[in-house]
Amino acid sequence: MILLLLLGVIGSGMAFSTCKAAQLSEATQTCLACHVSVMPGIHGDWLSSRHSRVAPADAMALPQAQKRISVSSIEGSLGQTAVGCAECHMLRPEEHPDSFEHNGFRIHTVVSPADCATCHPVEVEQYKQNIMSHAYGNLMHNALFSLLAASINGVHTIAPKGLDQGSQDPLTLSDSCLSCHGTKVQVMELKKRPTSMGEMEFPVLSGWPNQGVGRINPDASMGSCTACHTRHAFSIEVARKPQTCSQCHQGPDVPAFPVYKVSKHGNLYEAQANKWNFQEVPWRLGKDFTAPTCAACHVSLLASPDGEVLVERTHRMNDRLPWRLFGLVYSHPHPQSPDTSKIRNKAGLPLPTELTGEPVDLFLIQPQELNTRLQKMKEVCWNCHSTSWVEAHFQKLENTLSSTNQSTLAATKILLRAWEQGLASQENPFEEPIEKSWVQQWLFFANSTRFASAMGGADYGVFANGRWNLSKNVSEMWEWLRQAEALRKEKK
Amino acid sequence: MILLLLLGVIGSGMAFSTCKAAQLSEATQTCLACHVSVMPGIHGDWLSSRHSRVAPADAMALPQAQKRISVSSIEGSLGQTAVGCAECHMLRPEEHPDSFEHNGFRIHTVVSPADCATCHPVEVEQYKQNIMSHAYGNLMHNALFSLLAASINGVHTIAPKGLDQGSQDPLTLSDSCLSCHGTKVQVMELKKRPTSMGEMEFPVLSGWPNQGVGRINPDASMGSCTACHTRHAFSIEVARKPQTCSQCHQGPDVPAFPVYKVSKHGNLYEAQANKWNFQEVPWRLGKDFTAPTCAACHVSLLASPDGEVLVERTHRMNDRLPWRLFGLVYSHPHPQSPDTSKIRNKAGLPLPTELTGEPVDLFLIQPQELNTRLQKMKEVCWNCHSTSWVEAHFQKLENTLSSTNQSTLAATKILLRAWEQGLASQENPFEEPIEKSWVQQWLFFANSTRFASAMGGADYGVFANGRWNLSKNVSEMWEWLRQAEALRKEKK
Amino acid sequence: MILLLLLGVIGSGMAFSTCKAAQLSEATQTCLACHVSVMPGIHGDWLSSRHSRVAPADAMALPQAQKRISVSSIEGSLGQTAVGCAECHMLRPEEHPDSFEHNGFRIHTVVSPADCATCHPVEVEQYKQNIMSHAYGNLMHNALFSLLAASINGVHTIAPKGLDQGSQDPLTLSDSCLSCHGTKVQVMELKKRPTSMGEMEFPVLSGWPNQGVGRINPDASMGSCTACHTRHAFSIEVARKPQTCSQCHQGPDVPAFPVYKVSKHGNLYEAQANKWNFQEVPWRLGKDFTAPTCAACHVSLLASPDGEVLVERTHRMNDRLPWRLFGLVYSHPHPQSPDTSKIRNKAGLPLPTELTGEPVDLFLIQPQELNTRLQKMKEVCWNCHSTSWVEAHFQKLENTLSSTNQSTLAATKILLRAWEQGLASQENPFEEPIEKSWVQQWLFFANSTRFASAMGGADYGVFANGRWNLSKNVSEMWEWLRQAEALRKEKK
Repeated sequence: MILLLLLGVIGSGMAFSTCKAAQLSEATQTCLACHVSVMPGIHGDWLSSRHSRVAPADAMALPQAQKRISVSSIEGSLGQTAVGCAECHMLRPEEHPDSFEHNGFRIHTVVSPADCATCHPVEVEQYKQNIMSHAYGNLMHNALFSLLAASINGVHTIAPKGLDQGSQDPLTLSDSCLSCHGTKVQVMELKKRPTSMGEMEFPVLSGWPNQGVGRINPDASMGSCTACHTRHAFSIEVARKPQTCSQCHQGPDVPAFPVYKVSKHGNLYEAQANKWNFQEVPWRLGKDFTAPTCAACHVSLLASPDGEVLVERTHRMNDRLPWRLFGLVYSHPHPQSPDTSKIRNKAGLPLPTELTGEPVDLFLIQPQELNTRLQKMKEVCWNCHSTSWVEAHFQKLENTLSSTNQSTLAATKILLRAWEQGLASQENPFEEPIEKSWVQQWLFFANSTRFASAMGGADYGVFANGRWNLSKNVSEMWEWLRQAEALRKEKK
Repeated sequence: MILLLLLGVIGSGMAFSTCKAAQLSEATQTCLACHVSVMPGIHGDWLSSRHSRVAPADAMALPQAQKRISVSSIEGSLGQTAVGCAECHMLRPEEHPDSFEHNGFRIHTVVSPADCATCHPVEVEQYKQNIMSHAYGNLMHNALFSLLAASINGVHTIAPKGLDQGSQDPLTLSDSCLSCHGTKVQVMELKKRPTSMGEMEFPVLSGWPNQGVGRINPDASMGSCTACHTRHAFSIEVARKPQTCSQCHQGPDVPAFPVYKVSKHGNLYEAQANKWNFQEVPWRLGKDFTAPTCAACHVSLLASPDGEVLVERTHRMNDRLPWRLFGLVYSHPHPQSPDTSKIRNKAGLPLPTELTGEPVDLFLIQPQELNTRLQKMKEVCWNCHSTSWVEAHFQKLENTLSSTNQSTLAATKILLRAWEQGLASQENPFEEPIEKSWVQQWLFFANSTRFASAMGGADYGVFANGRWNLSKNVSEMWEWLRQAEALRKEKK
Repeated sequence: MILLLLLGVIGSGMAFSTCKAAQLSEATQTCLACHVSVMPGIHGDWLSSRHSRVAPADAMALPQAQKRISVSSIEGSLGQTAVGCAECHMLRPEEHPDSFEHNGFRIHTVVSPADCATCHPVEVEQYKQNIMSHAYGNLMHNALFSLLAASINGVHTIAPKGLDQGSQDPLTLSDSCLSCHGTKVQVMELKKRPTSMGEMEFPVLSGWPNQGVGRINPDASMGSCTACHTRHAFSIEVARKPQTCSQCHQGPDVPAFPVYKVSKHGNLYEAQANKWNFQEVPWRLGKDFTAPTCAACHVSLLASPDGEVLVERTHRMNDRLPWRLFGLVYSHPHPQSPDTSKIRNKAGLPLPTELTGEPVDLFLIQPQELNTRLQKMKEVCWNCHSTSWVEAHFQKLENTLSSTNQSTLAATKILLRAWEQGLASQENPFEEPIEKSWVQQWLFFANSTRFASAMGGADYGVFANGRWNLSKNVSEMWEWLRQAEALRKEKK
C-alpha cells in the first residue's frame, strides 16, 4: 500500500500527495459543478496544483525556509480551504471594475497581482520595484520608444506622394509589442450572449487576452503573475524552468534564452534536468539541481544541500543585476526607479544615456549600489565557481559592455552625420533604412553580444547576431553614407 | 512480482506490456532471422512498437474510443499476427512496381499510405483530402511555384554575358524543396550487388530516400505516413509531440514550431510534458496532458478526463483551419480542393488571390464552410478558455491577417512599379534582388507575424521576422526603387 | 528494502548505486572539509559522478566492452580511491606552471587532457589527432583566418579620415572566437587576496575561464575534456546528448545542432530520449537508444543489443568523416594533419583549396583514406538503413558538396572582379561589405546547405540559410558589382 502510494508520487511527480488535501469552499464547489465539464482543461491543470490541495493556513504553518506563501495571517475563512476558483476570482470585488454578476456570485476575469498579494504580499511588493512591472508605461509613456513601436506596427501603403505608414491600430499593438510588455485591460461594456446554460452577461474587455509582464489591470495594479506562474497549475516548476522566460526572451532583441541554451549552464539543464527536482522549497543547490536556470540566478532563494539559505529570493529581478544590458541604445547602470518613462538626458530625450553614450547619472544607480548588486550576483556564482573564475568572468563582461557601446557609437555617428547632411530626416528617427540599421546595431547585435558575454553564449557573441554583425552592419552603414554623400556631391 | 512488472511498465513507458504479445507470422520470423543482426537498430525500434505486440484483430476488439485502428475486418491471417516486416513490406505486391524477389518473398521498399490503409483506412482517406498529401504537385505542377523552386535550386555561374543560373538538378531538388514536399519515387532498374549473404538483386529508386508529406509513391499513392509516424516504432507519442512537426515547420517560411515554443502552450509543453501521457487513446485533456501540442489542436481526438469524446480525430488537418496563413502571397480562406495546382486567378496566374490580394472565390471555401472550420477550432480552445477569450483571440488574428496582407500589398506595388518602369524584369518574378525582397515580405515576415498572432508567439510577430521586418523590408524596397528611379532619370 | 533501493536507483537515474562506493583519499577529504560548504554546487555535481564512487582499479577490472577507462595499470595509491578533488587537481604538479601552494598542498586550477590521460590515455591520444584539439592554432596561426577574426572583433570608430577598425583586444578575442576555439591560458602572477579562511595566494590566469576545444593549457597540452565531459559530474550522458555539441555548433557558421534537431534523428531524440539509457557502456543500439545523437555517429562505441561491438569508439572525430563540410571557403577532403595552419595552396595562401576551389591534394587525405572513412560512417548507418538507402543518401550529399562549391565560386568570381577593378580593396579581404557578403556565401549558406544535406535537415538547405540564401546573396552581390561598375564608368 505504501508502495503504491510511493509509485503514485513518482508517477504524478508531486511531492505533496501524501498530505491530506484541504477542503474546497462551497463557492468553489458551486463553480466546479459546471466548470469541470465546461472547461476540463483548466480543471485538470488546477487539480495538479498545490492550490487545489493546500489551504493557506497549512502553507503558513510550514517552517520559514519551506514556505511558499509570505503572508502571516489571513482573515476569515479564506485561509482554511484550498485555493479554488472562488478564492481568486471573487477576491476584492469592489476593486474590480471587471467584476460581474454570475449565477449569484460576483466574479472577475482578470485576477491581478493585487489579488495574489492576499497570500503572497512580499513577492508582489518586490515585483512592483521590478522594472518589468512597468513594462507598459516604460514603452508607451516614453515618447521615443512609442515612436519606435509605431514605426514597427503601422501598416505601410503606397500613396501617390510615396511610401506612407499608417498609425498603429490597438489590436496590432496588443498583438505585437504589448504581448510581452502587457496591455492596458479595460472594461468596454457588459454584453449578453447565449451559453449552454442559457443567456448570460459577460464583460467585454479591451487589451484581452494578455499576460504581459507589465499589464495594466482593470483594478489599476501592474503586471501579470501568470506570465511566469502559468495558469492554472501555478507550478513553481514552470517558473523555475527557462522555457518560461523564453516566451519573451527569445528574439534577436533580447536573446537571453537562446544564449542560455548554448551556455554550459543551459547544456547541463538540457542534458540533466530530467533528474532534477524543480518543486522543492527551499531549492537546494547541488542536491535538487546542479546547474542554474534563469530563475536560479535572477529570482530564486537558493539553499545549501542541508537547507541553509545561501541567497534570498527576490521578485525585483534587477536586485542581482548591476547593469542594464539590453533594450536601450547603450548599456548602463540600472535605473534607480522601475518607472523609466520619466528619465531625461541632457538633450531632453527620454533616454538614460546621451545619444553619444554618456550615462545620465541622476537617474541611474550609483557605484555603491551597483557594486552591491554585483556582489549579490557573485554570491550566486561562488557556489560553483572560484573567486578567480568569477572575477575574470565579470572583467570580460565589463570589457564587452564597453566595446559594444563603442560599436554602437560608431553607428550613431554615421547616423548623426546623415541627419546633419540631410541624407536622412531626423524627424522620425526610426523610419528610414539607415535608421533601422542603426536600431539593429544596438537592439540586436550589441544586445546579443552582451548576453553572450554575460552567460557564456559563444556564437551569439560572434556569428549569431554578435560581433560579426556589429562589424558588418557598421561597414554597410558607412558604405551607404559614403555613396549617399558622393551622389549628393555629384548633383551639386 | 507484481511490483517488478509495474516497475517494468514505468521503465519502458509502455502501457501495453501487461498484454500477452501477439505471435509473429512465419514470414516475419524468416525476415528477422537475418535482419535482427543485419539491422539491429530497426529491430530494436520495432520491438518497442505496438505493431510488434498487438495483432490487428485484438486492436479491433477494443472499445471504439480506445481504437487505434479504423478497419472493421481484415481478410485472412493478416489480422491474427503482430504487424512485422512481412505484414507491411509484402502487402499488395502486384500494386508495387518497386517489389522484388528476395529470398523467396516478394518485397517492396516503399511502404505507402495505400498499404497502411489496410488497417487505417479512415486516416488514409482523410489524409487524401489534406492539402499536405498534394504537396508534390502543388509545388511542381504550379508554373509559378516551380519557377520559385528553380530560382532557389539552380546553381549560379558567372558567364561572359553576366550572372547566369543553371537549371535545378534532380538530386538538388529532392534534397531541397522536395525533402518536405515529397519526391516522386520511381524504379529505375534492378541491380545486383554483393551482400553478406551473397550476391542479391535490389531495385534502384530515384527520389529515394524521402519521407516528404506529399511523396508520390511507386504505387501512385500520395504521402508518407512515416513523415509523422516515424519508422519503425510508429509511436503515437512521436506524432503527438511537436518536434515531429518541426521537421518541416521550423524555417523562416513556416515557423510554426518556433512560434509554438515561445507560446504559453509551448512553454507548458517544455516545462511539463515529462509528466504527461502521450500514449493513451483516447487522449484525455486535463488528465493525460494540460496544454496542447500541434497534434492536439490540429489532428487528435480529444476526450474529457473520463473518456468522453470532445473533438473528433482528423487527418485532413485543415478541417479546423479556416484560413491559409502561409505559403502564398496573401492569406486567404482555405482552397476547396487539396489539389491547388488547378487554381487560376483572373490574371491567369496559378494563385488563389490576385497579385493585389483579392481572393479568387471560385476555388476557395465559402463563408459558411469557413465558419464551420472556425467553430471546430474554437471547440478545441473552449476546453481551457472562455468564450470571451477565444472570440478576442480570433478577432486579433483576423486583424493580423488583414494588416499583413496590406503590408504585402505595399511591397507588391513597389515591385509592380519597378516592373512597369523596366527597373526589374517581370520575365522571371523571383530572380532579381528586389523580387527576392518581395518574396521575403510575404513568405517570411507576413507568415511569421500570422503564426505569432495565431498561436501567441510574441516576438515572432515583432522582431523575430515579424512586423519590424515587414516595416524594414518595405522601407528598403522603397529606397531601392527611389534610387533606381533617380539614376534612371539622371541618365535620360 | 530492496524495493527502496530500486526506487532510489530510479530516482537518481544512476546505474551504479548498488556498487559499494570507493573510499576517498585523505587529500580529497581534506579538500572537502572546506569545499563542501564553500562550493556546494560543485560538490553536489561531483557526488552524482562515477568519479566520486568508483576507484580506477575497480573501473579497470570491468570486462573490456564495459570499460570507461583505457589505462591498464596505475601506479601507487591513485587507483585505489575514488577520483576526488586531489586526484585531478594535484596530478603532475611539476608539469603545471599554474600549480600553487594551498593549505599544504600543491594545487593547479587547470586540469588538462594530459592529466586526464592518467586514466584515459587512449581517448586523449585520439583527441590529439582530432582537428578540434588544434582549434586555437588553426585559427590564430593562420594568417588569413586570424585576419578574419580581427575584422570581427576589432571595434569600429569614426575617425576624421573615415571608418576605422581598432585591433582586437585580448579579452574580446577570448570572449568571442576563442570561447569555442579555446584560449591560451597563461599564469600572469601570483596574487594574495582575503578569503573566508584568511589571506591566501592564488595564480592570476590570462585566457581564463575557458573550456574551448583547442585550449592551450599552462602545461602546454591542447584541448579541454570538460568542453564535452562537463565538470564535475563528467557524465557520459551529457557527452552523448546533442545539446553538449550545440554549445559551439548552433550558429549560422556551423548549424549542426539546429539541423540535427529538425532531422528524423533529432525528431526521435526529442520525442523519445526520455526513455533511452544514456549511461550504459557499451551503448547498445536498438536497446539503449533507437536513433543517433551527434556522439552516436561521430564518437561513440556502438554495440548490438546483446553487447557485441559494432563500431569502435573514437575521439578523433574525423575518423568517420571523409569531407570537411564547413569552416573553409570550399568543401574538400579532410586535411591529413590536425594542424592545418601549415597548409599552403599554390597561391601561397593558408587554404586547403585554391581561391577558385581546386583542392590542394598535398595536404589532404587521398581517395583511399577518404573511402575508408566513408565506409566507417556507413557502418554506423547500416545498423538502421539499407545499403540502397545509404548509397543514395551519400550520392545526394556529394552532389550538394559540388553544387554548393559552385555557388561559392560564383560569389568568389564577383569578388575577384571587384578587386581587379579596384571597386574593393584586396588588402584586407574581410573588411568591406562586398567581402562580408562573400564570407556569408560560404561560411553561412554553403555550410548550412551541406549540413542539411548530410543530416536530413530540410529547411536548413532551403530557406533557413540554405539555397534560397545562396541564390539571394549572389544576386545581390552581382547587382552591387554591376551598379559599382556603372557608377565608375559614368565618372570616367
